[in-house]
Amino acid sequence: MGMDTPSPEFRLIQDYFADRQAIPATLSVPIGDDAAVLDWAGERQLVVCTDTLNAGIHFPDHAPASAIGWKALAVNLSDLAAMGAEARYFTLALSLPTADKDWLREFSTGLFSLANEHGVTLIGGDTTRGPLSITITALGAVSPGTAVGRDGAGPGDLIYVSGTLGDAAAALTLGAAPVDEHQQVLFERLYRPRPRLAWGQALAPLASAMIDISDGLAADLGHILARSGVGATVDVDRLPLSPALQAVVEPAAARRLALNGGDDYELCWTMPSAAAPALQQLARDSGMIMTEIGHTEPTPGLRLIDRTGQSIAIEQQGWDHFA
Amino acid sequence: MGMDTPSPEFRLIQDYFADRQAIPATLSVPIGDDAAVLDWAGERQLVVCTDTLNAGIHFPDHAPASAIGWKALAVNLSDLAAMGAEARYFTLALSLPTADKDWLREFSTGLFSLANEHGVTLIGGDTTRGPLSITITALGAVSPGTAVGRDGAGPGDLIYVSGTLGDAAAALTLGAAPVDEHQQVLFERLYRPRPRLAWGQALAPLASAMIDISDGLAADLGHILARSGVGATVDVDRLPLSPALQAVVEPAAARRLALNGGDDYELCWTMPSAAAPALQQLARDSGMIMTEIGHTEPTPGLRLIDRTGQSIAIEQQGWDHFA
Repeated sequence: MGMDTPSPEFRLIQDYFADRQAIPATLSVPIGDDAAVLDWAGERQLVVCTDTLNAGIHFPDHAPASAIGWKALAVNLSDLAAMGAEARYFTLALSLPTADKDWLREFSTGLFSLANEHGVTLIGGDTTRGPLSITITALGAVSPGTAVGRDGAGPGDLIYVSGTLGDAAAALTLGAAPVDEHQQVLFERLYRPRPRLAWGQALAPLASAMIDISDGLAADLGHILARSGVGATVDVDRLPLSPALQAVVEPAAARRLALNGGDDYELCWTMPSAAAPALQQLARDSGMIMTEIGHTEPTPGLRLIDRTGQSIAIEQQGWDHFA
Repeated sequence: MGMDTPSPEFRLIQDYFADRQAIPATLSVPIGDDAAVLDWAGERQLVVCTDTLNAGIHFPDHAPASAIGWKALAVNLSDLAAMGAEARYFTLALSLPTADKDWLREFSTGLFSLANEHGVTLIGGDTTRGPLSITITALGAVSPGTAVGRDGAGPGDLIYVSGTLGDAAAALTLGAAPVDEHQQVLFERLYRPRPRLAWGQALAPLASAMIDISDGLAADLGHILARSGVGATVDVDRLPLSPALQAVVEPAAARRLALNGGDDYELCWTMPSAAAPALQQLARDSGMIMTEIGHTEPTPGLRLIDRTGQSIAIEQQGWDHFA
């Protein structure tokens, strides 16, 4: 009779999440008890992050359920990547207005396809009635002292980003579904971001600070600068733009999306210039796509220049959806 | 420009949750980075649970913010208690329609008062705009092999519950606020449930199966029976009822609330009868309030009897709010 007594309809939801993955030997009490019980190797530190996606806020109402499932996990794995951590386990808290079977099948398919790609295991969660909202907590592992925080950048470090920027934000300016191959690429970036776990682990020994780009490069690099007590100059003409982005929007808009658009889930890191040869070797060995975009300096704040060295105004540091 | 770019208003929310607790030495990367990094002692297993509270579903709209903050953590700590685990850390995912400062101050006060009582530390989270919803993930610790699952009850075990039952569910039948001392006691049980962490740890060496009572005794004992492959007979005249409950509702209603009401957050456990003397000693040493209410048997299902041994019909196995 309590307010949260689950209805039989909602108990069925567990069918979409139970027995979808092999149970690792480290999990001694699996899904379905009050809590999961895990062995945790003593030599590894535990890395924990939590992120929520809400309907209409973090994804458009027309987003496919499989994309929502994928992305809810991806944004968390991206946080682990930014620490240089391995991903191990996750919990899922899912609030749903109704127990829609088609939606649940698609959502869980998207979720588990990413989970299985990275070998991360669902260890528990909670399913309740409420407006559509997904909160995932991800658990990862790092060797002691190897996690890369936001606060380690020194003056004179080089600044890098992985992949290309602005693609996901460009998709948000389009219609409900792609109408050509370029738009298809952009929607794929919005709906199925690729958490850069392997790259994050490979970069950890070299990077002085690292973050994943969720709120836009300017805002997220700004977090590194503020926490590290340094400033930076970034050459906006070096921002890596995909052919799809350049085909769909004008150059000025592309640059603005790359700088201030969110949902990239690429990595941004700083590194002493002495490590540049090691990074070049790493990029060759791992196939990592990366671009040097600027450098840090003692003067606080972020300054933008173009390829001629001309100063560029920072139009907007991110965009407030709720102002 | 991403859909989830946090507004400056929402960044302020962090002020209510940062620097509210001492940072333990085990936390090497605290709140404010992409993820928390924790040392985890090698000899201890990790226990992980997640629970969500949604407005109007898990608490009435008139619930005070401090009670919502307390309860959101309490329901998770209660899950750890039911495993026999110590509570260590938690993450908080908070969706809010507006950044209401009064609400946030009260919510965070309720949350941290319970957290500090049990020495659990907030290590990270996410604050987003959306309908009011709180998801907490709690991390606890057990010595290897000592966690108490739901599946260990054998036939002939004794069945116990801690504390008193039905109080919180009775408060839900009352008005928005208590009008006398008895109602005050019942509202306190609804709004500030006490997770039985110390009792859970003390019971772990004795209990064959354990669960916390969130959906009502009949439903939650039913989980133990189903997972353990046994049945049970419970004497409804033994169900522990508080003086407040007995003062506010009729005897038949009190029994029904104790059996089917939710939100008790007491422990229910089974135990071989040979352990009864050790349990009596434990209760004397710890001040634990507990009642033997019945026993398990080979025949599946839950049977109810009264003090005369007469069979009683099970009216409702929990109550579906959403049917």
